[in-house]
Amino acid sequence: MSETSATIPATSATSTLLRAGELTVEQRPVPKPAADEVLIEIAAVGVCGSDVHYYRHGRIGDFAVVESPLILGHEASGRIVAVGDDVDERRIGERVAIEPQRPCRVCRQCKAGRYNLCPEMRFYATPPVDGAFTGYVTIPADFAHPVPDELSDEAAALLEPLSVAITTMRKARIVPGSRVLVAGAGPIGIICAQTARAFGAAEVIVSDPVADRRDRALRYGATSVIDPIASDPAELGLAVDAFIDASGAPIAVDRGIRAVGPAGVAVLVGLGHSTMELPVEHIQNNEIIVTGVFRYTDTWPVAAQLVANGQVDLDSLVTGRFGLDEVRAALESDSEPTSLKSIVYPAVARYGA
Amino acid sequence: MSETSATIPATSATSTLLRAGELTVEQRPVPKPAADEVLIEIAAVGVCGSDVHYYRHGRIGDFAVVESPLILGHEASGRIVAVGDDVDERRIGERVAIEPQRPCRVCRQCKAGRYNLCPEMRFYATPPVDGAFTGYVTIPADFAHPVPDELSDEAAALLEPLSVAITTMRKARIVPGSRVLVAGAGPIGIICAQTARAFGAAEVIVSDPVADRRDRALRYGATSVIDPIASDPAELGLAVDAFIDASGAPIAVDRGIRAVGPAGVAVLVGLGHSTMELPVEHIQNNEIIVTGVFRYTDTWPVAAQLVANGQVDLDSLVTGRFGLDEVRAALESDSEPTSLKSIVYPAVARYGA
Amino acid sequence: MSETSATIPATSATSTLLRAGELTVEQRPVPKPAADEVLIEIAAVGVCGSDVHYYRHGRIGDFAVVESPLILGHEASGRIVAVGDDVDERRIGERVAIEPQRPCRVCRQCKAGRYNLCPEMRFYATPPVDGAFTGYVTIPADFAHPVPDELSDEAAALLEPLSVAITTMRKARIVPGSRVLVAGAGPIGIICAQTARAFGAAEVIVSDPVADRRDRALRYGATSVIDPIASDPAELGLAVDAFIDASGAPIAVDRGIRAVGPAGVAVLVGLGHSTMELPVEHIQNNEIIVTGVFRYTDTWPVAAQLVANGQVDLDSLVTGRFGLDEVRAALESDSEPTSLKSIVYPAVARYGA
Amino acid sequence: MSETSATIPATSATSTLLRAGELTVEQRPVPKPAADEVLIEIAAVGVCGSDVHYYRHGRIGDFAVVESPLILGHEASGRIVAVGDDVDERRIGERVAIEPQRPCRVCRQCKAGRYNLCPEMRFYATPPVDGAFTGYVTIPADFAHPVPDELSDEAAALLEPLSVAITTMRKARIVPGSRVLVAGAGPIGIICAQTARAFGAAEVIVSDPVADRRDRALRYGATSVIDPIASDPAELGLAVDAFIDASGAPIAVDRGIRAVGPAGVAVLVGLGHSTMELPVEHIQNNEIIVTGVFRYTDTWPVAAQLVANGQVDLDSLVTGRFGLDEVRAALESDSEPTSLKSIVYPAVARYGA
Repeated sequence: MSETSATIPATSATSTLLRAGELTVEQRPVPKPAADEVLIEIAAVGVCGSDVHYYRHGRIGDFAVVESPLILGHEASGRIVAVGDDVDERRIGERVAIEPQRPCRVCRQCKAGRYNLCPEMRFYATPPVDGAFTGYVTIPADFAHPVPDELSDEAAALLEPLSVAITTMRKARIVPGSRVLVAGAGPIGIICAQTARAFGAAEVIVSDPVADRRDRALRYGATSVIDPIASDPAELGLAVDAFIDASGAPIAVDRGIRAVGPAGVAVLVGLGHSTMELPVEHIQNNEIIVTGVFRYTDTWPVAAQLVANGQVDLDSLVTGRFGLDEVRAALESDSEPTSLKSIVYPAVARYGA
Repeated sequence: MSETSATIPATSATSTLLRAGELTVEQRPVPKPAADEVLIEIAAVGVCGSDVHYYRHGRIGDFAVVESPLILGHEASGRIVAVGDDVDERRIGERVAIEPQRPCRVCRQCKAGRYNLCPEMRFYATPPVDGAFTGYVTIPADFAHPVPDELSDEAAALLEPLSVAITTMRKARIVPGSRVLVAGAGPIGIICAQTARAFGAAEVIVSDPVADRRDRALRYGATSVIDPIASDPAELGLAVDAFIDASGAPIAVDRGIRAVGPAGVAVLVGLGHSTMELPVEHIQNNEIIVTGVFRYTDTWPVAAQLVANGQVDLDSLVTGRFGLDEVRAALESDSEPTSLKSIVYPAVARYGA
Repeated sequence: MSETSATIPATSATSTLLRAGELTVEQRPVPKPAADEVLIEIAAVGVCGSDVHYYRHGRIGDFAVVESPLILGHEASGRIVAVGDDVDERRIGERVAIEPQRPCRVCRQCKAGRYNLCPEMRFYATPPVDGAFTGYVTIPADFAHPVPDELSDEAAALLEPLSVAITTMRKARIVPGSRVLVAGAGPIGIICAQTARAFGAAEVIVSDPVADRRDRALRYGATSVIDPIASDPAELGLAVDAFIDASGAPIAVDRGIRAVGPAGVAVLVGLGHSTMELPVEHIQNNEIIVTGVFRYTDTWPVAAQLVANGQVDLDSLVTGRFGLDEVRAALESDSEPTSLKSIVYPAVARYGA
Repeated sequence: MSETSATIPATSATSTLLRAGELTVEQRPVPKPAADEVLIEIAAVGVCGSDVHYYRHGRIGDFAVVESPLILGHEASGRIVAVGDDVDERRIGERVAIEPQRPCRVCRQCKAGRYNLCPEMRFYATPPVDGAFTGYVTIPADFAHPVPDELSDEAAALLEPLSVAITTMRKARIVPGSRVLVAGAGPIGIICAQTARAFGAAEVIVSDPVADRRDRALRYGATSVIDPIASDPAELGLAVDAFIDASGAPIAVDRGIRAVGPAGVAVLVGLGHSTMELPVEHIQNNEIIVTGVFRYTDTWPVAAQLVANGQVDLDSLVTGRFGLDEVRAALESDSEPTSLKSIVYPAVARYGA
């Protein structure tokens, strides 16, 4: 292992979820990078809906349950401070954005280029794998992506949700000229709207029941907005090429799919429901493709490019900044109507280091 | 218009659906082919579930309602007896299978190669367009497909449901080595099982609650069968590459989709439900593609090849043969447990011609 | 046929190619639109390399030979002044860009969505089908595309070469993040460079041996340029995702393909050679796809969007404007080094109308 | 490391290529499997054209040069006799076919599912990586594929060239109904012809100048044959969907590509030429895709299925069997006209073990 000339401490302050609703700040040992890994000093970490869900409910669905203390946070940027034996030591000092997954690289899915679907995946902040609300983390070197100088630490962290959006565009087959309906003007909906434009979409219609959120969507790529309470998208005759659900609301999904035209695609990004009543006859009669998005493959370089080019604005999405001892506030900030994206700074804390 | 030396009559006996449950046999004028059409003397016509549905309910869903007398039947073979002005008259005498659709050829869907999704489609036996339970029909010349000598008239007629199966294989991305689950061992399920094997599927698992139907599936391409009452396909850990629903049963669809592995496909062929409760979380976490099949494009030549090669057996699927005055019995034959496929012979009738 | 209130003349002045090198201006009858066609009063017509080739050599390759008088010009815009019986007469007065092809709509290629490859194609200014250096032309209504107000007549005409570029991007699989090498900074190369950026390409490297043309490329989308005389692109280790040849030069094609990385694509747009020596071993060892572009399908709406959005600039490409009696000068203008794109105005002429 | 109860020797007899034309049999140490590897006792090894080429010329092209002693042979089957620390020891005793490649699993190509194009690839019998003309070899556990009981050791070895053929079918987009032209009735051409049929090809036309080889092709899947000396495939109006070159002959490639119809594919499998004169105008005017095949990904399970099902016959391709001390004869056997495929049995030798 090679490391930076700056001293790496033995432990660092960490925000740990003990069980639903219970957080503590503690000192945890700084990990050693394995031979193919790098050690990263964390700069900024975005708060994601899944972090909030683990904090509130201690689980997501039946398969991901917090059974022992867990470090949350998986949208992270930082700087390489040490590298494993097989990694080029010239990478020390590099600013990086973390692709927070460790696939097995050996299974059928990995070898087919779908490492996001690896059944052996170890993913940050998914039990029992720890995340990034801490001072230092390790990741395989190829999942630590260089960050252009133009990007802030916050934008670098938010390349993670942008990666979700890029994957969504690929699944939704967005190309120049596409007409797209996006349901939900939260962080993912807003990033999807911008990304759809960057992929060339001619029309990006955002649907949200809240007027302020619709206004926000218009500032972030939407070419028009719909209030789904006032007008059912399915009855407007939109016949869009793609529908992207970023709301998780069953009624939005049903109506959104009905708004898709022949041979179109519906991508369900919003989470939270085990089953949903879907308009099967419309799907069949129009040969619509319905699918979902689960993580991402090969998105960070494109994501960085879209931000560096000014096609996607991540910086202005940040509505709150928190120290490590304020993680509870960060996780609860999403209940404020004006909140869009909160950032945790693990190195900033009254407690500990 | 050029025609055969044999005399074409002015009228022919026709079975007409007056309204739900009410059929009559009447003389109808023999149509004239338009410039780009051929006139076909019908040999054999298969009875499809949609014919039965119109007969029983007078409608399918909300968009296809029998509001005036309608000739049913859209799985048809015959012989060209006259051609329109723009058609090569050497085609007179040719045995043909009918692709029973008339797309507009001009709209976006048609020009994109998806003429099956043409919003201006005029499709046989779909109100208000008449079908083939009659002596003579017209169709554009390019939708009258030559039939190899090896194929019987019945097999030629049944190239239509085989075309549905071929389209299903394409949507389900069946390639050599695929592992497939088919729900339902009725006519479409049985033809899909055979076609999956012809497309190279390594495993074709057919699920049906009726033992006799499971046995039948094993004779027609299934490599194994499942009784879904006794064992839930979703819990067998199948992780198939593709699920094909040919049952229309909501529970079969839910369990079938849950049996699909990462990046797999579910194709819903079975009809009859406007909406269905689908396992959205499983679809999302595995990036499964769910879609449907609506008619077909460019399938007849392949279908004829599969039958001529012996890869698909259509002849032995026929369990009943009926004259034109027995259409009611043909349409009601599907309620008998041993019935699989009924054929109507419009030229055979005690009534009329 | 419905027509505009403005009088349509019986004849209009036309520039006709009699044989290689010999042009005349004559009065030709104004055509009548067939039932599915519109009659268009021509506004502006771009001069294409193929027009120049017919003018200079009387043929392109072995299959397209000028054997009787031919009207050149196939990049055209105008205004609908009459419509056939089956066309909505409200289209009269509409500004349109012409997609200059008449496929048969019936053959296997047409029905598969590849109408550009229709063997029965009748294409403007390809013997024996006349083009647009004349006052009025007809085209099927669905091939007369509405033009947004933001577009000039010249830009509307140049949606045709932009359609070639869009097809090229599709063939070259350009998506956000792609790295592209374009050989040749002539009109097609310049439009391809801009279009590649509009499709999201991260890098667009343009290669041209002329310094002025390289400078021009930098103003139209190139992120960097190469002088292929000074440095062989194949030896720079570019390993691009896509190579687009817009030069037609064998050495540029050879070197360009060698600059493509694993699983990349090479699209040959430049014309003029029946055969070329290609680097087969490099193609094989890297599983590179080599293909060509022949016309287009479904591009005009996207093309109009790209121009209206400001992503592609066509107006400033125009370096010369000519009346109908100056077609010879227009056709010969490409020999001037500063010439990029010449436009013919058929309604402007000292001769005739 | 766990190993079989049978004793594994410290060394085994090995056929080593010292330089072009010079082979020796020597004792080499039996390797130890790394943690993720298995140790395989070799049963049978097929002789490939590339082995012959290294033997004759000491190199293939410019990039693969025999600069130190090299063990040839990469089409191999055997039995697992020991496993590395991370491999399930129940695999000991398993009959396996070897996928003879070790990709890095980390680079962009590997992570995109194209591990065959990994620039860090270490491939059997490609300098400086040793192959299988020896008693024991190691390979990562996931590249040692289980072999069904139905397959002989020879068929198991020949899953390697069958994997080339399967990759070729995928590249050539062979689906039920495809019409295919194969140039060359050597081992790869013969296996491709059979595999094309297994993928559903309706017509498989094999072209070879030698009558005996054409007769052989007819016994192995060809539906018809062509003598290219007597009739140029390009002039027969075939317009095939796919052309597969398994000859490496420039004239066959030129004519074969010209025989491809609109939107068809040409896959160049035959090796040996750095560049070739290709019919670019035909490629462009028909938007033909030209590409090559380089190794394979995810083919062994399908290959084993095709052989077990009887769709591809590999056993009867074997025309010669050789002990380890007869490798020279095996490598030179391809010059006999009746030779098709030679097999080396490393455990059978007068010399050494």
